Amino acid sequence: MNILVINAGSSSLKYQLYNMTDESVLAKGLVERIGMDSSILTHKPTGKQEVTEVSEILEHTTAIRKVLGMLTHKEHGVISSIEEIQAVGHRVVHGGEYFKESALVDGPAKAEIRRLFDLAPLHNPASMMGIKAAELNMPGVPQVVVFDTAFHQTMPEKSYLYAIPRVLYNKYKVRRYGAHGTSHEYVSQTAAEFLNRPIEDLKIITCHIGNGASITAVQDGNSMDTSMGMTPLEGLMMGTRSGDLDPAIVPYVMNKEELTVNEVNSMLNKHSGLLAISGISSDMREITDGMEKGEPNSTLAFEMYEYRVRKYIGSYAAAMNGVDVIVFTAGVGENSVVLRQKILEQLTFLGVELDEELNKVRSGDPRRISTKNSKVEVLVIPTNEELVIARDTHRIVQAANSKE
Amino acid sequence: MNILVINAGSSSLKYQLYNMTDESVLAKGLVERIGMDSSILTHKPTGKQEVTEVSEILEHTTAIRKVLGMLTHKEHGVISSIEEIQAVGHRVVHGGEYFKESALVDGPAKAEIRRLFDLAPLHNPASMMGIKAAELNMPGVPQVVVFDTAFHQTMPEKSYLYAIPRVLYNKYKVRRYGAHGTSHEYVSQTAAEFLNRPIEDLKIITCHIGNGASITAVQDGNSMDTSMGMTPLEGLMMGTRSGDLDPAIVPYVMNKEELTVNEVNSMLNKHSGLLAISGISSDMREITDGMEKGEPNSTLAFEMYEYRVRKYIGSYAAAMNGVDVIVFTAGVGENSVVLRQKILEQLTFLGVELDEELNKVRSGDPRRISTKNSKVEVLVIPTNEELVIARDTHRIVQAANSKE
Repeated sequence: MNILVINAGSSSLKYQLYNMTDESVLAKGLVERIGMDSSILTHKPTGKQEVTEVSEILEHTTAIRKVLGMLTHKEHGVISSIEEIQAVGHRVVHGGEYFKESALVDGPAKAEIRRLFDLAPLHNPASMMGIKAAELNMPGVPQVVVFDTAFHQTMPEKSYLYAIPRVLYNKYKVRRYGAHGTSHEYVSQTAAEFLNRPIEDLKIITCHIGNGASITAVQDGNSMDTSMGMTPLEGLMMGTRSGDLDPAIVPYVMNKEELTVNEVNSMLNKHSGLLAISGISSDMREITDGMEKGEPNSTLAFEMYEYRVRKYIGSYAAAMNGVDVIVFTAGVGENSVVLRQKILEQLTFLGVELDEELNKVRSGDPRRISTKNSKVEVLVIPTNEELVIARDTHRIVQAANSKE
Repeated sequence: MNILVINAGSSSLKYQLYNMTDESVLAKGLVERIGMDSSILTHKPTGKQEVTEVSEILEHTTAIRKVLGMLTHKEHGVISSIEEIQAVGHRVVHGGEYFKESALVDGPAKAEIRRLFDLAPLHNPASMMGIKAAELNMPGVPQVVVFDTAFHQTMPEKSYLYAIPRVLYNKYKVRRYGAHGTSHEYVSQTAAEFLNRPIEDLKIITCHIGNGASITAVQDGNSMDTSMGMTPLEGLMMGTRSGDLDPAIVPYVMNKEELTVNEVNSMLNKHSGLLAISGISSDMREITDGMEKGEPNSTLAFEMYEYRVRKYIGSYAAAMNGVDVIVFTAGVGENSVVLRQKILEQLTFLGVELDEELNKVRSGDPRRISTKNSKVEVLVIPTNEELVIARDTHRIVQAANSKE
């Protein structure tokens, strides 16, 4: 079965075409600047030359038509006709409490994703555009939605409820949902496989640290707590997001600076985090460069960032009464040698023993960076959210087909 | 030297009169309902009968005059004239970045406390009324201010800065200040004395858990991080305060419910926490009773409360790369056997070993509740903020006198 994985943003669309016989990627690519003057389609067929095409792509239906054109292109294509795509898998940010796992797209599912626009006003409408565009271009092809929140639906009440009036949960479903669920699920399962131990026996802390960042406590293979909250603002300090904050600062600043709700949201989501403290960049590579040059604001930004990751690891060790495995993943987690080192060398109280040489190895494979004597296994596992989406889509479509 | 310690709230005034020769309390008491119809003065002279007097007390100057009347009363008094009070010590909630320690009250000090009204609009004006009232009633008697925030002024930047635009710190001093500083300082010092070990060698986590609650990481005798933030809203779940929250919930709820800045502050400070989740009470004793009767909302409130204390302990262990001593203090911390038990029995990963029998002992003295084999010493230490205020006042007034 060939599966097209789609991750639609408001003005972008990422795709990967999988051959599920061997889980190989036939092609992947990206459409940027949808709805703007000159949209860019970058197409990378496996084993062939990358192609870039600039044209006017005003909305997602055209974007998918262009992508399908590329996938079946005589020169740049990897399949001979659209009929060779047997299913489509969509990444959707917010599944609320309704979607506890991936689901086949049907009327009720679409209605529910629409109801969740309120909780994910930036993300779910974009996902819905991707779904509609795929339906229009590939009528009759089964589609599956895979949610960033679904893995976290196993959290107990004590983790997901906020200590605020219950009416806010009853009326608006204000609670912790978390994010990066497919990543936390994938790397925790991969960790158990790598260690050749049953996941049910492991207390795992997964650190998905990219431009957005979240940490999850995984016990018995289930998410039992995670740092992102109702929205992706809570938790760790991120590239441009503040993370945790005295909630009283929000009304204080709104009052002082006469900010609207939208303005304060924009400040906390787009103009905070590493960018605000360093004054230079939201990119950990530039922050690390600045630190190595002795630039004080970059050093401070790095220290705050490191300190907060470390505190969350301690917090989740306490949540599970222990930790067997710590996993680093995503852009920063997979690549920042110095961040991992600074975090881990101050977690010796947990029995963590870092192998500094292994920590410096760069590789696309799962790997151990702790010593053999370390009481806690520390792993770096490249995440692969697209593969999880392809696998879920494959499983769900096969199950639906066998029912018929 | 006799020292009068005053803790002035907006409609209340607590006092204790100390004889500093032996640090004994000569009398203590409380004026309630200042400014309302019938104010109540409750006076407890040591070794004598408690007295209650109901009268009209419209403001703090009258309140202090009444207190002085009681202290020098023929029957209920403990001193023969006001002249026997050589100094006054005031508790002040917010000392900002200016007051890194207790200070003699003079013109600049008063101006600074007034400047801080903006950061502590409910508390500092009340403290100022107490100071003025004492000055009017006892002209020429030296007065000292002792701040809830001062102990935390040793926090490093990475602990006290939020990851938001720096201009908010530069313009409004938006940062973490913490609270309960005199308590965290007192119990950490008492812990070191109790263990007969130099405080410089200890990593201590102090849990001040009362109606308000905060946890502090104390390293080398200094506060290096604390859970309350710019305001006392951040951190642990409390009687009626939410504690930590996705900051994006604040504008979301303001928008949905059309709440003003004051209304959302009131919701998060007065109608959240244990009260909101249990639907019954903000008092941990009633929550525990409810839990023991199998009441599900009380059980949930207790679990959330316990879980969050435990996570902060883990977080601060990671902040210091270890913990030697955990201290419980204040109303709930000193008295809730079941809360301490539930927290500690899930911290065995730190090497904590609770002695369940010692945990059940009720006493007004500092005591150990961990076993001899426990890697972490766990202590219950009754706090005594008034004594810290009296000691600071004594030291500062003596130093000022010796200069003259």
